[in-house]
Amino acid sequence: MCIFCQIVKGEIPCNKVYENDEFLAFHDINPKAPIHILVIPKEHVEKFQDTTPEMMAKITPFIQEIAKTLELDKRGYRLIVNNGDDGGQEVMHLHFHILGGTKLTWPQLAPDESKKYL
Amino acid sequence: MCIFCQIVKGEIPCNKVYENDEFLAFHDINPKAPIHILVIPKEHVEKFQDTTPEMMAKITPFIQEIAKTLELDKRGYRLIVNNGDDGGQEVMHLHFHILGGTKLTWPQLAPDESKKYL
Repeated sequence: MCIFCQIVKGEIPCNKVYENDEFLAFHDINPKAPIHILVIPKEHVEKFQDTTPEMMAKITPFIQEIAKTLELDKRGYRLIVNNGDDGGQEVMHLHFHILGGTKLTWPQLAPDESKKYL
Repeated sequence: MCIFCQIVKGEIPCNKVYENDEFLAFHDINPKAPIHILVIPKEHVEKFQDTTPEMMAKITPFIQEIAKTLELDKRGYRLIVNNGDDGGQEVMHLHFHILGGTKLTWPQLAPDESKKYL
């Protein structure tokens, strides 16, 4: 079973930020910024390319609420979805990265530079 | 007036990919990957944090369609929204970056490395 489905079922632990019936937000175990949260639908959806308008309509206020709770709404944050192989998607269960807590470079710090946040 | 609103009105040119009544997709003038498209709502919305569920429900299939047209759906792509100051948002009109055409690093190539795509 997919690792994020196992996290949803509680079979693998996570550092949870917030959840409701449909979505779960938790800290990335390999953070690329001082704040690095993953937001997932509890239902298994593989990619952003497969998501429905209905799901996006529901997950958007959830993401906005997480940003507000973490006080990222005023300072700002970056939202990223890696879709498929070229996008660098590592877990094939749709997830949104919320990155913040510092002024992010554009496009983004290379992996070596990001080590200072670990 | 905001530069993206001027692009929508045709007062500033852009290298257009596709548009419909509500959304416009065009090539980023400073690409960070072989393919780098910006998708914007024609209506001025400042940030992702301000978007409505309705808008996200409509822009999602538009983004998916652009990805398909550019044949990014199979190889993959990265979708990014920079929200506010810490997120590195440079134009205060909501825009989604679609990045693809190569296997993207995670989090992403640093600006110097990305020069090879220019």
